[in-house]
Amino acid sequence: MSSPKHFKENMAPSENESEHVEELGVKEKNHSKTVQWVLNPPEPPTLWCEFTGSIKAALPSKSRPIWSHVMVFLNGLFPILQWGRNYNLRMFKSDLMAGLTLASLSIPQSIGYAGLARLDPQYGLYTSVVPPLIYAVMGSSREIAIGPVAVISLLLSSMIQKSADPSVDPTSYRKMVFTATFFAGVFQAAFGILRLGFLVDFLSHAAIVGFMGGAAIVIGLQQLKGLLGITHFTNKTDVISVVRAVWVAVHQPWHPHNFLIGCLFLIFILIARFLGRRNKKLFWLPAIAPLLSVVLSTLMVFLTRADNHGVKTVQYVKGGLNPSSASQLEFNGSHVGEAAKIGLIAAVVALTEAVAVGRSFASAKGYHIDGNKEMTAMGFMNITGSLTSCYVATGSFSRSAVNFSAGCKTAVSNIVMAITVFLALQFLTRLLYYTPTTILASIILSALPGLIDIGEAYEIWKVDKQDFLACIGAFFGVLFCSVEIGLLVAVTISFANIILNLLRPRIQMLGRIQGTDIFCSVSQYPVAVKTPGFLITRIDSSFFSFINANFVRDRILSWAVEDHTSENSDEAGQKVQFVIIDMSNVVNIDTSGIAALEDIHKKLVSHGLQLMFANPGWQVIQKLKLSKFIDKIGGDKIFFTVGEAVDACLESKKEFSMC
Amino acid sequence: MSSPKHFKENMAPSENESEHVEELGVKEKNHSKTVQWVLNPPEPPTLWCEFTGSIKAALPSKSRPIWSHVMVFLNGLFPILQWGRNYNLRMFKSDLMAGLTLASLSIPQSIGYAGLARLDPQYGLYTSVVPPLIYAVMGSSREIAIGPVAVISLLLSSMIQKSADPSVDPTSYRKMVFTATFFAGVFQAAFGILRLGFLVDFLSHAAIVGFMGGAAIVIGLQQLKGLLGITHFTNKTDVISVVRAVWVAVHQPWHPHNFLIGCLFLIFILIARFLGRRNKKLFWLPAIAPLLSVVLSTLMVFLTRADNHGVKTVQYVKGGLNPSSASQLEFNGSHVGEAAKIGLIAAVVALTEAVAVGRSFASAKGYHIDGNKEMTAMGFMNITGSLTSCYVATGSFSRSAVNFSAGCKTAVSNIVMAITVFLALQFLTRLLYYTPTTILASIILSALPGLIDIGEAYEIWKVDKQDFLACIGAFFGVLFCSVEIGLLVAVTISFANIILNLLRPRIQMLGRIQGTDIFCSVSQYPVAVKTPGFLITRIDSSFFSFINANFVRDRILSWAVEDHTSENSDEAGQKVQFVIIDMSNVVNIDTSGIAALEDIHKKLVSHGLQLMFANPGWQVIQKLKLSKFIDKIGGDKIFFTVGEAVDACLESKKEFSMC
Repeated sequence: MSSPKHFKENMAPSENESEHVEELGVKEKNHSKTVQWVLNPPEPPTLWCEFTGSIKAALPSKSRPIWSHVMVFLNGLFPILQWGRNYNLRMFKSDLMAGLTLASLSIPQSIGYAGLARLDPQYGLYTSVVPPLIYAVMGSSREIAIGPVAVISLLLSSMIQKSADPSVDPTSYRKMVFTATFFAGVFQAAFGILRLGFLVDFLSHAAIVGFMGGAAIVIGLQQLKGLLGITHFTNKTDVISVVRAVWVAVHQPWHPHNFLIGCLFLIFILIARFLGRRNKKLFWLPAIAPLLSVVLSTLMVFLTRADNHGVKTVQYVKGGLNPSSASQLEFNGSHVGEAAKIGLIAAVVALTEAVAVGRSFASAKGYHIDGNKEMTAMGFMNITGSLTSCYVATGSFSRSAVNFSAGCKTAVSNIVMAITVFLALQFLTRLLYYTPTTILASIILSALPGLIDIGEAYEIWKVDKQDFLACIGAFFGVLFCSVEIGLLVAVTISFANIILNLLRPRIQMLGRIQGTDIFCSVSQYPVAVKTPGFLITRIDSSFFSFINANFVRDRILSWAVEDHTSENSDEAGQKVQFVIIDMSNVVNIDTSGIAALEDIHKKLVSHGLQLMFANPGWQVIQKLKLSKFIDKIGGDKIFFTVGEAVDACLESKKEFSMC
Repeated sequence: MSSPKHFKENMAPSENESEHVEELGVKEKNHSKTVQWVLNPPEPPTLWCEFTGSIKAALPSKSRPIWSHVMVFLNGLFPILQWGRNYNLRMFKSDLMAGLTLASLSIPQSIGYAGLARLDPQYGLYTSVVPPLIYAVMGSSREIAIGPVAVISLLLSSMIQKSADPSVDPTSYRKMVFTATFFAGVFQAAFGILRLGFLVDFLSHAAIVGFMGGAAIVIGLQQLKGLLGITHFTNKTDVISVVRAVWVAVHQPWHPHNFLIGCLFLIFILIARFLGRRNKKLFWLPAIAPLLSVVLSTLMVFLTRADNHGVKTVQYVKGGLNPSSASQLEFNGSHVGEAAKIGLIAAVVALTEAVAVGRSFASAKGYHIDGNKEMTAMGFMNITGSLTSCYVATGSFSRSAVNFSAGCKTAVSNIVMAITVFLALQFLTRLLYYTPTTILASIILSALPGLIDIGEAYEIWKVDKQDFLACIGAFFGVLFCSVEIGLLVAVTISFANIILNLLRPRIQMLGRIQGTDIFCSVSQYPVAVKTPGFLITRIDSSFFSFINANFVRDRILSWAVEDHTSENSDEAGQKVQFVIIDMSNVVNIDTSGIAALEDIHKKLVSHGLQLMFANPGWQVIQKLKLSKFIDKIGGDKIFFTVGEAVDACLESKKEFSMC
C-alpha cells in the first residue's frame, strides 16, 4: 500500500482529471508547498542519538538534588526498597504458603538437576539458596522462582565435560563450572548495565520453541541412566550416542528394581499433576508430589534394604550452608577462554528463559518488567552464586508457575523457599542417604512435558514456514549434534531469514483505487487500476542498501525499459512515459542505494522516460540531498505523494500536447 | 509518512467531522468495503516462489521447438554467436587498434603483476592469452579488458604463501596457485549457473572503495622491493611488516641505480598520463608509455651493461605458448581446503571488480549486462585458465578504460590483444633479459592512483557515516592486518549496519495534515497535527520480527500507557483512548512479531484502551489471519487507512457519549 495522497475534491474517476483545467493552478501551488515539506524536513536524529538517547533516559536528570539521585539509583537497583514499604502481614501469609510449596518442589528438583549438571546433589541445593536471596532484593519480577533449571544444567555439563571429565577429575570440573558461572554473571550484568538487552532477542520465539523441545528430549534420554541404574554412560548428549549407550547397557546385567521404582513414582507424579490440573483447588498436589515421592521411596528402600539388591541410592550428601568457592575460580588456566565462551552461551540462554518467564507472568498481572534491570539483577545473582558454590541459576518455567498458582505476592516467597532449602541442607541431608537415584530421574522426567510445546510448533508451521525452519533447525541441531550447535543453527537460520527478506525485497506495481488518490499494490488489491502511461512502483524494503540495490535497480529498469521498448503497448494503448518510485517504505538508504538510483535515473533518461520520486523517508531525503542526487535530478521530481506526482505528469503532458 | 487515506469530500478540518452525521453512514459502508479488501487479498506469493520464479524466467518456455531452445541456450552461453553476425570490417579496424594499444599496456603490466603474485614473468603473460580468448566468446561486455590485475595478484600471493613459500618451494606454490584458480573458476561458474549473483553484492560500494584504497597502498609498498632492488623481503603484506623490512634493507648495502632508473621512468609514465588526460587525442600516449619505458630501459641496461653494476634485471623468461598445467592441480593434498577457501575469496573479489567494470562501461554505452551470465563466463574462463598455466584473471579497471578510449567496438579487441601477447611470448621473451625489474615496479606504481578514490571516500563520509565505517574498516583492515581480514571487516561492518538498522527501527508518532486524510510523522513534518485522544504510531521497519519485536512493543506500550496513566493529559486536554498502529511499512512479520502484537493488545485492553491497525502489508495480513490474531481482536479493528480508523473511533465515541 502506498503513500498518502493529495487533496482531492471530488470523486470523479481519474481519467476525467484533464478536464479540471482551473483546478491545476491550485494543485500547482499546493505541490510547491508540499515539496518544501518533503525537501526541508528538520534534521533527523542520527542512529547514535537514538542509542545514546535510551541510555540518557535511564540516567537521572540534572535538575534534582544529589540525595534524590542516590535514592532513585538505589530504588532502581534494589526494587525491594520500593515494594518493601507496603509489605504487610497478609502478603507475608500468602508468600509463606507459596514459598513452602515452592521449596517442596525445589528440593527434589535441585538435587535432580545437580545430577544433570554432573555435580554432587548439594550443589543443586546450594544454587537454590543464595541466588534466590540475591534476586529477591534486586529483581523486579514477583512470581519468578529462581534456582537451577534443566536446560542450563544440561548446557553446562555437555559443554564443560569436553574440557574436564567430571568422572575422572571432579575438582577441575567443578572449578570450570564455577568459573563459567562467574563469567555468565559478568556477561549478564554487563548486558544489563550497557543496555545490551537486545542480545537476548537474537534467539527468536521459534528458535526457543525448537531448542526447548530438543533439549527436553535430550534431558529425558539422559534420565534413562538413572531410571535404568546404568553406571557407565556416554558423555555426549546427542540422541544417537545416548541410544547406543543405553543399548549397550541393557545388554549387560542390570537391576530392574531401579526401573520399577522409577516408573511407579513417575506415574504417581503424573497422576498428581492430572488431578491438580482438573481441580484448581488441588494445585498443591502436583507441587508436593515430588517431595512425597522422595520421602516414600526413601522409606521404602530403608525398610526393605533394597540398596543391597542393586537399587542405586544418593548416599552421602554434604550438609551445611554453602561453602565459599571464591578460591576455585580460575582466571589464568588454559581453559579460561573456554569458560568465558560457555559462560556467554549460558548467560544468553538463562536470560532468555528468565525474561520470557518474568514477562509472561508480569503481563498476566499487568505490571512491567525492565529487561535491562532484570539482567543486572541476574548478573549479580550469578556472580555471588559463583563465589558460594552455586552454578548458573535462572527463572524456572515450572516452579514459577507453581509459585504463581500458590498465590505468591512478592519475591518474599523466594526468600521463604531459600530459607527452607537452607534448613533442609542443615538438618535433613542425612535422610537422603537411602533416596534412590531413580526417583530423581522420575522427577526430572515429569517436568519435561512442559518444555515440549508441539502445539506452538504446529502453530509456527501454520503461520510462518521460514520461522518454522529455525524452530526445526534448533530442534534437530540439539537432538543430533549438541546443545550449542542447536543454538548456533537456530540463530543462523533466523538471521538468514532476515537477510533473505532483505536480499529480495518485493517491488510492487501500484494502481489507483478509483475515485481516490490512494495508490496501492495491484497484486494485493485487485481493485486498484494501473494508470496508463505510468509505471508506478514501490520498493518494499525499509533499508535500500548494498544488499538489495542491484536487484531493485535491475527489476525496475527491466520493467520500465521492456515496457517502453516492446512492440505491444499496455491495455490503454499507451506506452510507459513516466516512472514513479514510491519511497514511502524506504526508511534508510546507503551509498550503494543512491548509486542504484543514479543508475536508474541515467538509464531512464537515456530512453526518454521521466523519473519521479514520491514520499521519501526522513533519512532518505537527507542523504539524497547530501549526495547532491536531488540537485542532479531536480527538486521538481520529488513529490509528497504518488497522487501529486501523477497529477504533475498529466499536467506536463497536456501542456506539451497543447504546444 | 503514512498510509493512503480514504475518500474525503471536503476540506474542513478534522475537528468539524462530528457534525457530518449523515456522512458517517456512507463512511460506514465504505469502511466495510475497504476492510474486505484488506482482509481478503489474493494469496501472496511465497518467498520460495519468488526465488524459483527468477530461475524459471531464465529457463526456456515450453511452447517452442527443441532446436529453438538449443539456439537460445547457445546464444546465451556464447554471445559472440549474436554480435558476430553483424560484425564488419569497420568494427574490426577499431578493434584492431584498440587491441594493439591494449597489448602494449598489457605486456608490461602482466609481467609486473606476475611478480606481485610471486610467479615467474611468463605466467602473467600466459594469463593475458587464454582467459581473454575464452571471455571473448562467452562474455557479454564489449569494453572489459581481461587479464591479471593487481588486487587479485596480491590477494593470491598473500594468502597462498602462508601454505607454501614461493622462494623455498616454487613448484608447490605454483600448484597451489593453479588449484586455487581452478576453485575460483568453479565457484564463479556455480554462482552464475545457480543464480547466486547476489553474493557479489555482499561487498558494499563503500567497502570496495576502502578495500581498493588499502590494497593499492599495500601494493605500492610491495613495489619498494623492486624499486630499491631488495633481495630479501617480508612475506607479509601489512604496512608495519613492509616498512620494517624496507628499513632493514636500506640499512644494508644497496644499489641506488635501481631506484634512479625506476623513478626516472615512473616520472616519464606519469607525465605521459598527464598529457594524455589534458589532450584527449593523445589517449595512446599513457597506454604506450609503459611499453616504451620497458624498451628504453632495456636498451639502456643493455648498452651500459648496468646489470653488472647492481641493476637487477628480469633475465630468463620462458617463451612459447601456455603449457598445460592440468597435472599440477592437486585435489587430495593437505592444502586442498585452503586452496578452496582462497579460491572462494578470489572468486568473489574478482567478480566484484569485473561486474563493477563491466556495468559502468555498459551503462555508459547504454546496454545491459546480465550478472549471472557474466559470472558463468568468468568461471569457465578461469577453469580453462587453471588448466593452461594461468592464474585468476578478471576485468581490469585501468586497461578497460584504455580499451574504451581506444575505441573498441566488441570483445574482438581482447582477441587481438591475446594474439599480440602470444606473439610476444613466442618471439620477444629473449629481449626481456636485460629489462630492469625496477621498471616493472614503476609500471605497477603508476597504475595505483586509479585504485585510490579519496573523493569517493569523502563523499561517503559526507552522506553516510555508517557506510563510511565499512569503508574505513576495510581500508585499515587491509593496511594493518591482511587482505582477507580487510574483506572480513568490511563485510562484517556492512552487515552489522543492516542488523543495527533492524534492531532499532524508528517508531514515528503520526499526525494529520490539516484538511486532508494524510497522516504523517510529526517529527519529519512539523505541519502535521496530532489528533487529541489518539496515539497514532507507525513502525518503520519492513520486517517486524524477533530482532525488533520486543523493542517495538515496549516503546509503543510505554507511550500508550504512560500517556494514559500520567496525571497530565495532552494539549487538547484529552487522554489517549485509542491507539492506532499504522502497518504500511511492515511488509513481513514472524511469530515473534505476532506475539508482540498480542502482548500490546492484551496490555492496552487491560488499561481500557482500544487498539486498531491500519493498512497491514500483504504477507502480514495473511499471517495475522493464519495465527487467528484477527479473530482474537476482531476484524473491525483492521482498517484500510489511518484516516478510516480515526473516523471509526470518533464515531464510536460519539455514539457512546449519546447513550
